[in-house]
Amino acid sequence: MKVVVNLKAYPCDSVEVATAARDVSEESGVPIAVAPQAAHLERVAETGVETWAQHVSPVEHGSHTGSTLAEAAAEAGATGTMLNHSERRLKLADIDTALAAAERVGLETCICANNPDQIGAVAGLGPDAVAVEPPELIGTGTPVSKADPDIVTDAVAAAEDADDSVAVYCGAGISTGEDLTAAQELGAEGVLLASGVAKADDPKAALEDLVAPL
Amino acid sequence: MKVVVNLKAYPCDSVEVATAARDVSEESGVPIAVAPQAAHLERVAETGVETWAQHVSPVEHGSHTGSTLAEAAAEAGATGTMLNHSERRLKLADIDTALAAAERVGLETCICANNPDQIGAVAGLGPDAVAVEPPELIGTGTPVSKADPDIVTDAVAAAEDADDSVAVYCGAGISTGEDLTAAQELGAEGVLLASGVAKADDPKAALEDLVAPL
Amino acid sequence: MKVVVNLKAYPCDSVEVATAARDVSEESGVPIAVAPQAAHLERVAETGVETWAQHVSPVEHGSHTGSTLAEAAAEAGATGTMLNHSERRLKLADIDTALAAAERVGLETCICANNPDQIGAVAGLGPDAVAVEPPELIGTGTPVSKADPDIVTDAVAAAEDADDSVAVYCGAGISTGEDLTAAQELGAEGVLLASGVAKADDPKAALEDLVAPL
Amino acid sequence: MKVVVNLKAYPCDSVEVATAARDVSEESGVPIAVAPQAAHLERVAETGVETWAQHVSPVEHGSHTGSTLAEAAAEAGATGTMLNHSERRLKLADIDTALAAAERVGLETCICANNPDQIGAVAGLGPDAVAVEPPELIGTGTPVSKADPDIVTDAVAAAEDADDSVAVYCGAGISTGEDLTAAQELGAEGVLLASGVAKADDPKAALEDLVAPL
Repeated sequence: MKVVVNLKAYPCDSVEVATAARDVSEESGVPIAVAPQAAHLERVAETGVETWAQHVSPVEHGSHTGSTLAEAAAEAGATGTMLNHSERRLKLADIDTALAAAERVGLETCICANNPDQIGAVAGLGPDAVAVEPPELIGTGTPVSKADPDIVTDAVAAAEDADDSVAVYCGAGISTGEDLTAAQELGAEGVLLASGVAKADDPKAALEDLVAPL
Repeated sequence: MKVVVNLKAYPCDSVEVATAARDVSEESGVPIAVAPQAAHLERVAETGVETWAQHVSPVEHGSHTGSTLAEAAAEAGATGTMLNHSERRLKLADIDTALAAAERVGLETCICANNPDQIGAVAGLGPDAVAVEPPELIGTGTPVSKADPDIVTDAVAAAEDADDSVAVYCGAGISTGEDLTAAQELGAEGVLLASGVAKADDPKAALEDLVAPL
Repeated sequence: MKVVVNLKAYPCDSVEVATAARDVSEESGVPIAVAPQAAHLERVAETGVETWAQHVSPVEHGSHTGSTLAEAAAEAGATGTMLNHSERRLKLADIDTALAAAERVGLETCICANNPDQIGAVAGLGPDAVAVEPPELIGTGTPVSKADPDIVTDAVAAAEDADDSVAVYCGAGISTGEDLTAAQELGAEGVLLASGVAKADDPKAALEDLVAPL
Repeated sequence: MKVVVNLKAYPCDSVEVATAARDVSEESGVPIAVAPQAAHLERVAETGVETWAQHVSPVEHGSHTGSTLAEAAAEAGATGTMLNHSERRLKLADIDTALAAAERVGLETCICANNPDQIGAVAGLGPDAVAVEPPELIGTGTPVSKADPDIVTDAVAAAEDADDSVAVYCGAGISTGEDLTAAQELGAEGVLLASGVAKADDPKAALEDLVAPL
């Protein structure tokens, strides 16, 4: 199982969460990546944690003011990126181009989508992973694995149909070790989480609890 | 006169340009800011140059994956930001909210617009500066001060009508000291430029040439 | 006072509302326009009511699949259009271009905005009218004239500063004759309303009530 | 083979093209649909031709000013719709929701995409048809079947892998009967075309030439 911690635009201390993630990852052997604001990529990467961008733009070098260039993210230390998060939905053509941009600089990629149909669609584009996150569960604390386990198994089936080398991650409402185990049993190979760690009083304890069952 | 160098998503060495800008600014006394990719804000700020964001998002702390949070830009060292660049046009309501976000963290602000009418519109929102950049001249090497000087004088008049404390900058096609002087004579108090410095073989020499007449 | 009834994407009978508006307008002498879905412009215009588009695109004739071309709206019978409604916010540059498109075919124009600052901004672009609609009041049934009368007077002042030939309309929460009178007393020259008429059991009675005080 | 004529925002007489399409369809037995501006749906449908929307919005009845509600398009006479045309690209989640909107009112659906990968992605969502239109060929007069026949065969294969009940149409550069035959030989079951008919001096002759080989 892989864990990606999305810091969104939360008022958390990105270096504190990154340091906790690095330590828990080293201690547990579970790969944990942290995805901060683009402006914080460098300080997060300096902790030694696996660092992901929250998004990269569907552009190449050129006149693209205000974009998030994959090359710049990689130079700042990112080794992976989410794409099409429900808070940063992209046009289909732009998912395709942003994926190519990420691959151009060797970023690991995880494309998010709402439901099994869309998971099948994006898995066919060939990312490293896809993440199913029903929008209605994001930020609720109710894990998709409990609220609607069929969404996870259907997503796993849809991704496999499209391209069986694509891993399926599970997002929305994940916060405990039990949630993570439930996701794993449904076929997920990773989890995306956010507030459960980023807003925790003690991010390290939250991460330790999360990976304890593994 | 103030100079803002927009590095866009150019394949330039942002630290090299930043260092050149810092040195030329110190030697000449002309304020020169450099606006890199968000992921490069920290390394640019570390050179000591005045550092600007290319854009900040119309959001506060919260669930805004893939945004450019003003707080994060400021923490990375930005002290100013462009808004509504022609390559990153915003909805009017979002210009208003992004301006409030920038002001919330004390960023100096410069809102770009296409023509004098739009300059009047955005000046009324109360930024520190507005920049008139006719889209058809961006990247051409033909300065607006030559191609159509009335645009600059009309923009200055429109901004003054709306709010006479707002400075007017001039963008699009500026690259030489002569261009800068011409802009100044038309009433501009600053210039935005990009490829003329960022793509120059010798960015320092380009900046020295630019500020020489001042 | 002018009344614009926005049918949005409501499940109302657009011809029934249009017929009621036509009749009440003729009986009362108060100008009442109805703004249906683009696909219903023709059937609404055939009733003889003043017909408005809800939006026109910032384009000219050409390769713009899925746009709402001002020419097509006019050919279908529209004589006016809203622009930048809070449910269809536009980039500032696109407000400017869409306004030009509407003027190109002689449509009366009303640009919506959230607050007095934005009202000042769009009034400067020179439309026939602007409409202030605080987003937090839309659909609440609480008229802006009661919830926050200063917004209306400030919007009137801001528009006058920018261009004193631009009329100010008042939207959000207007449904009764009392609301309309209150808006008028604050300086508004028109009202935008939607659910109060479009979702009324008897749209004609709702409109008669609305214009009764005039 | 099915023919869909996209009138975009062209300055053509939509009723003249519709009448020609109706007549040629009746004479030849080839199904020909015409997709006008939303504001022209009603007048086009009144000719008796098969009428398509160029786009429908990913919304249901409600507060969606300026949208193109599927219900309104159907009430105006549309029996089909394009989605995600390269001039009206949608977010993936919105393609999914707009498709559901179109199906809710019984519209035939054709989702456009740039390349075989994206065709596979959208075919998996279950529309009636998908259309491959390489953006670089749109409006060139060079048919994709000549410029790059592999794109068509790869698109047909990708769609079949995803859902073998989905028809593949071929767009971009189609204008003659020869182009249509070439598309058919590569596995396409329909064509999208635009300027070749809409801008023809004699649309009826252009359509007759198009369907002659069938």
